[in-house]
Amino acid sequence: MEARKIGFIGLGEVGRTFARAMNENGAEVYYFDVVRKNSHEGIPFLPMEELVQRCDVLLATVVSQAAVEVAREACRYLKPGKLYADLNSTSGSVKREVAKIIEASGADFVEGAILSAVGETGAKASILVSGKKAEAFARLMNELGLVHVRYFSPRVGDASTVKMVRSIFSKGMECLLIEMLVAGKRAGVSDDLWKEIVQFMTEHPFERVAENWIRTHPVACERRYHEMIQVVETVREMGLEPIMAKAAVDFFKRSLAVGLPQAFPEKPARSWEVVDRLEKELKP
Amino acid sequence: MEARKIGFIGLGEVGRTFARAMNENGAEVYYFDVVRKNSHEGIPFLPMEELVQRCDVLLATVVSQAAVEVAREACRYLKPGKLYADLNSTSGSVKREVAKIIEASGADFVEGAILSAVGETGAKASILVSGKKAEAFARLMNELGLVHVRYFSPRVGDASTVKMVRSIFSKGMECLLIEMLVAGKRAGVSDDLWKEIVQFMTEHPFERVAENWIRTHPVACERRYHEMIQVVETVREMGLEPIMAKAAVDFFKRSLAVGLPQAFPEKPARSWEVVDRLEKELKP
Repeated sequence: MEARKIGFIGLGEVGRTFARAMNENGAEVYYFDVVRKNSHEGIPFLPMEELVQRCDVLLATVVSQAAVEVAREACRYLKPGKLYADLNSTSGSVKREVAKIIEASGADFVEGAILSAVGETGAKASILVSGKKAEAFARLMNELGLVHVRYFSPRVGDASTVKMVRSIFSKGMECLLIEMLVAGKRAGVSDDLWKEIVQFMTEHPFERVAENWIRTHPVACERRYHEMIQVVETVREMGLEPIMAKAAVDFFKRSLAVGLPQAFPEKPARSWEVVDRLEKELKP
Repeated sequence: MEARKIGFIGLGEVGRTFARAMNENGAEVYYFDVVRKNSHEGIPFLPMEELVQRCDVLLATVVSQAAVEVAREACRYLKPGKLYADLNSTSGSVKREVAKIIEASGADFVEGAILSAVGETGAKASILVSGKKAEAFARLMNELGLVHVRYFSPRVGDASTVKMVRSIFSKGMECLLIEMLVAGKRAGVSDDLWKEIVQFMTEHPFERVAENWIRTHPVACERRYHEMIQVVETVREMGLEPIMAKAAVDFFKRSLAVGLPQAFPEKPARSWEVVDRLEKELKP
C-alpha cells in the first residue's frame, strides 16, 4: 500500500492526535469535519467531495452515532482503489452495515477498534483492525506513526467485537472497584480494603489469579452464591444499592441452574473447560 | 495470652487444616463436631460441654448457617477467662449477634474473616481478626502456625465487613471474566481476547490501571454508558444474557443520575475523590 495522502473524516481528539502523528511521519494529511472548517495545526480543511477525491485512504473518526451517516456521504465520491477505514467505537454489526455501504462504491473497507484511551496513549494507542485489506492497512499505519495498529482478522466486525466484549471486563472492573470502595468507605474500611486488594493483585500474577477464579467456579459457585447474597444484604444495610454484587448473585445462580457443579465434580485442570461448558449450556 | 489448649467447634476442611497446624506447633487441640464423633488424626473428640471446660480458646469453624446456633450451645458452658473466636464466613451483623450471645457469659469474643481459599493456602491463609482481644489472639495464632492471621480493628464485625465488601471485587471479577470469555468464545475471538487481557494486566501495574479507571469515571461515564448499551446488545445478539454487562449499564446510569460528570468537569487528581463524592451523593 503506497498511499500517502490521508483524509480524516472528523477531527475530534482521536482525529487530531492521529493526524498530527501522520503529518510528522511524512503523510499528506487533510480533513473534513462538520463543526471545524478552518485549517488546523497545518492540516488543511477540504469539503467531503474534495477530500475523498484527493486522498487514497480515508479514516472515519467521528462520534459513533454518525458512523453510518458519514459513510453514506463519503460513498457518493468513493471509487475502486480508494480505502475507507472506520475507526469509530461501534459494534461489529454496525461495522458490517458500513462495509456494505462503502463496498457498493467499489472501494475497499477496513474497520478498526481503538482499545486504549487516546487521551492517555496518544498515537501509541492499541488498535485492532479487521477486513480483507486490514493487513496492508496495519502496515501503512505503523509506518505513519501509529505503531500499535495490529492486524486482527479478515472478517469485518471481528476487531470491534473484541473491543465490545473486552469492555465487559474493563468497564465492569471500573464499576466493581467503585462499588467496593464506596461500600468500604461507608463501612469505614476503605483504606485497608484498597491496600489489601492492591497488595493481592500486585503480589500474584494476574493470569494465575484469573485462571484460579475461573477453574474454581463450578465447584464453588453454590458457596459463592450464598456468600454474595449476604454481601448484597450487608451493602443494602449500609443504605447502598449493590448493583454489581446483585448481578454476581444472578450470575452464580445461573451457573447453578445449568448444572455446572454436576458437570465438574472436581476443579478442572484448565479454565477454558469451564468457559466451553458454560457456552454450550447457554442455549441461544 | 498463654493459652495452649485449643478447642475446635466444627472439623470441616478449615478446622482440620488449622487443627493439624496447631498440633504441630505445640498446642493441645480438641474438637467437637455434630457429624464426626471419633478422634481424628490424633485430635480427640470431646462433647461440647467438656470441650469448653477443657479449652482456653474455642474456635468456631462451622458452616455459616450454624454460627448463631453453636454460639448459643457453647455459651451454656463458657465463663470469664475463656475466649471464643468465630471464624465463620458471615456478615458483620451476624458476628455482632454472636458477640452478644458469647459476651453474656463473661467470656471474650473475637471474630475473624478468612480471606483466602484454605484449600489452596492451608494454614497460611490470610485471616483478619477484630474485637477487643483480637490483637493478642492474632499473636497467639501466629505462634501456633497460622502465620497470616492479622489484627484488623477492635470493633467486632469490621473484619467480616472487609471480607464481605472485598467479595464484590473478587467474586465480581470471576463473573466478569467468565461472561467476557463465554461471549468471546461464541464470537470466535476468546483466545485473542484472553491473550490481550492477560498481556494488558501483566504489563501495567494494577494500582495505576485501577486508579485510572476510577479517576476517569466521572468524565467518561456518559460515553461508557452508551458503549455498554451497545455491548449488551452485541452479547444478546449472540444469544447470551449479559448479566454483568447489564449491571455496568445500570451503574454508569446511576453515576449520571447523581450528577458525577457535573461534579468533576475534569479528571480528578486522586481516585478517592470520586469514591468520596459518590458515597456522599448516594443517600441511605
